[in-house]
Amino acid sequence: MIIINNDKNIPIYIQIYEQIKNEIITEQIPGDSKLPSIRGLSETLNVSRNTVENAYQQLSSEGYIKSKPGSGYFSLKLDSIQLLKPTNENLLDNKEHNKLFQDTSDTESLKFNFTNRCYSVSEFPLRTWKKLTNQCMQSIDFLSFTKYDAQFGVHDLQIELMKYLKKSRGVSCTPEQIIISSGMEYSLSLLCQLFREISPKIAIEDPGYSVAKSIFDNNGYSVLPIRLEKNGINVEELYKSSGKVVYVTPSHQFPTGSLMPLQKRLHLLEWATRKQGIIIEDDYDSEFRYNSRPIPSLQSIDSIGSVVYLGTFSKSLSPSIRIGYMVLPQSLLKKYYEHFDSYHVTASLMQQKILAQFMQLGYWDRHIRRIHINAIKKHNLLIQTIQEYMGDKVIIHGQDSGLHILLEFKNGLKEDEIIEKGKKCGVLVSPVSTYWMRKKEYKNNMIMLSYGGIAEDKIVEGIRTLSNAIFND
Amino acid sequence: MIIINNDKNIPIYIQIYEQIKNEIITEQIPGDSKLPSIRGLSETLNVSRNTVENAYQQLSSEGYIKSKPGSGYFSLKLDSIQLLKPTNENLLDNKEHNKLFQDTSDTESLKFNFTNRCYSVSEFPLRTWKKLTNQCMQSIDFLSFTKYDAQFGVHDLQIELMKYLKKSRGVSCTPEQIIISSGMEYSLSLLCQLFREISPKIAIEDPGYSVAKSIFDNNGYSVLPIRLEKNGINVEELYKSSGKVVYVTPSHQFPTGSLMPLQKRLHLLEWATRKQGIIIEDDYDSEFRYNSRPIPSLQSIDSIGSVVYLGTFSKSLSPSIRIGYMVLPQSLLKKYYEHFDSYHVTASLMQQKILAQFMQLGYWDRHIRRIHINAIKKHNLLIQTIQEYMGDKVIIHGQDSGLHILLEFKNGLKEDEIIEKGKKCGVLVSPVSTYWMRKKEYKNNMIMLSYGGIAEDKIVEGIRTLSNAIFND
Repeated sequence: MIIINNDKNIPIYIQIYEQIKNEIITEQIPGDSKLPSIRGLSETLNVSRNTVENAYQQLSSEGYIKSKPGSGYFSLKLDSIQLLKPTNENLLDNKEHNKLFQDTSDTESLKFNFTNRCYSVSEFPLRTWKKLTNQCMQSIDFLSFTKYDAQFGVHDLQIELMKYLKKSRGVSCTPEQIIISSGMEYSLSLLCQLFREISPKIAIEDPGYSVAKSIFDNNGYSVLPIRLEKNGINVEELYKSSGKVVYVTPSHQFPTGSLMPLQKRLHLLEWATRKQGIIIEDDYDSEFRYNSRPIPSLQSIDSIGSVVYLGTFSKSLSPSIRIGYMVLPQSLLKKYYEHFDSYHVTASLMQQKILAQFMQLGYWDRHIRRIHINAIKKHNLLIQTIQEYMGDKVIIHGQDSGLHILLEFKNGLKEDEIIEKGKKCGVLVSPVSTYWMRKKEYKNNMIMLSYGGIAEDKIVEGIRTLSNAIFND
Repeated sequence: MIIINNDKNIPIYIQIYEQIKNEIITEQIPGDSKLPSIRGLSETLNVSRNTVENAYQQLSSEGYIKSKPGSGYFSLKLDSIQLLKPTNENLLDNKEHNKLFQDTSDTESLKFNFTNRCYSVSEFPLRTWKKLTNQCMQSIDFLSFTKYDAQFGVHDLQIELMKYLKKSRGVSCTPEQIIISSGMEYSLSLLCQLFREISPKIAIEDPGYSVAKSIFDNNGYSVLPIRLEKNGINVEELYKSSGKVVYVTPSHQFPTGSLMPLQKRLHLLEWATRKQGIIIEDDYDSEFRYNSRPIPSLQSIDSIGSVVYLGTFSKSLSPSIRIGYMVLPQSLLKKYYEHFDSYHVTASLMQQKILAQFMQLGYWDRHIRRIHINAIKKHNLLIQTIQEYMGDKVIIHGQDSGLHILLEFKNGLKEDEIIEKGKKCGVLVSPVSTYWMRKKEYKNNMIMLSYGGIAEDKIVEGIRTLSNAIFND
């Protein structure tokens, strides 16, 4: 029984072809059966003969049916068909399916969202971006769309980034050392491909950035947790480990927010020298620093070419333009180009051009100043409100920089209890436990509060609500 | 001696800070030396005292200098400094540097470019794309730029792709099975991450697509070459190999252009069933098919969920918008979501939205028809011209589809001689040897001619010139 539906996107002959094909595959039409004549089927379905003929021709050219002169079309017997039965194992059931695809829906009904999946709605420079997009589209030519070009990034963007990184982070490099990518995840996965022959292991801070850990895991590396001290990774433990590549967040440790001081930076570089190691420096939110000038990057004091510097526009501009970058030391550049000779830059060429213009015309500097001022305001308000409502019942960690703090509770409450109590009254906060590899090291008494995505006027109310839920219930 | 330059991008205090820092690191200023007074230095450099003070403060907060009350600023002695000497090993020398970054320049002076790095300049629908970009920017809101959204792809684009793939390639899937990425390279590197625990080996066609091979290599897989027969991969050899994952190009084998017929497709699916194997079906240029209707994809006859279907917009629309996709079987979806729970889609959100609109409004279908007609014209002209000028001195391979053919020479000339002769008279063609893993299987008598990137009116002249160079020299 062939059913023709009204979906105009699928030509009728394809629909007919599909259904007959499926019936042959599933043996509803057994091998060597005579099919209805073209004329007969066209009358039954009320379609033109031509349509049926097209369907039969397609089936015939693919070997499902064949025409016997004088007696019409017959299905073919296909040896292998019986093997191709569907198995139901591993299929998502409906519940899981819904969970996967609708999981975020209930977070939107929450009144106060302190999680880190959301960015402030008022800070993207939409008008300027529209203007530049428009200009870029006016000036762009055919050629830009029709070539594999700018293999490792648009040159103008590399130049702007070089200037910006020099000025703001002390990073010294040529434009060619800057590899543009479609975000931190891809940068890291390229590095995983690059370092495979150096070592099958990567050392990371514990606690540390769990996304980086998943990427290393997924890329087949053994991940070595190295204890975090107050001032950054424990370099002695790193020496004792067998890691030759280490991933660190020295300018704003994730998640604790601590800052690695110069002496320790030098120790870490010394480790790299002695062990011929490589340091991946993830400087993911260097734009946000409040109580002191930003400390220059590790890259800026690395004179032996052991540091790969990573950055992203996801935090400071927009996670949806999908642009990140890494700065390779000269010593790795040759190897990189050999390895990825056949690869192409993964960031959209147009977005790269718009961003380059954005930086070149001074909008980026202005934008950074603006988000910095906004972030300080929110940061100060958050700290002040917490002190007012929670006082000495909590300890605030990592308040000098970034867009989040950790809140440690002294009243014996556990992480999941705090999250649960918050959720009940509409305040969403993030767990911290996920960032510890050695779970027993974690005292299970903290939560993370991200304030990048919450409006300033909701901070006081949000913290008061959370405080009431936790302490006055 | 501190030199202040006129680069307005770098604040003067940073320049001062940088130079003093470098002198301390390189011990030009030894430890515990007294620095010039703020007043003295500001007069010497003719800058404000404030500027020097800022520089000193920065140096001080980073631990390079310290102030002794009443006696001024002193440099600190840093233990680890002496280790941080640059090494010159592995650095690119100037020549290599130029080679890496300017290698393509001479190809542009060539009159006839038959390589596959270039696409036809007249076929990108620039005007429509500009209009849609403009519309998209008008209707887009802040929120789109300020959230990590659409984790595995913009839903509208997934829906449009589902409809298109169903219609054109018989691919059956839900929108959620379609994972959008920033191109085939990233799709494959995600699959490498996903399949790591299934097998450390990947079987590929030999000859086959060398870019895929490099990606598998870079991701640490052992690549198993499986002999290619006239009608596709040798399934018996695949059985004998220890591979559980196989990468194939069944609808247009790369580079030979052959088509895998239905019976062999069923044998391959049978292999997957018996071995619980996975088939990666790369359908990279399915839009270009000339002498018959496109054969449906492997995915469309796979009822056991063993096929991952890969596609890209790089060939059919533009390599610079950086959008590709893969269709996962339901059976892998759960595993995929678990694995990549913390990842985000790498294609620009805006480009995805524009493309979705492009498809939704019917421009895509029109575009496909147009490039198809153009490609046929060029294809026919190329074949006809080759027959006219080279006649039976050559064999043409893979002329039914795609945007390239292979040309086999019967006169005993070797690949590199042909390429060299072409280059001398301004005709650039690509080698084929790179696609064979088992080099001795290759007879070294072919070249690849890609006609996607050459204008129609240059084809005759290009082929005549090449023919003269090869046969009449």
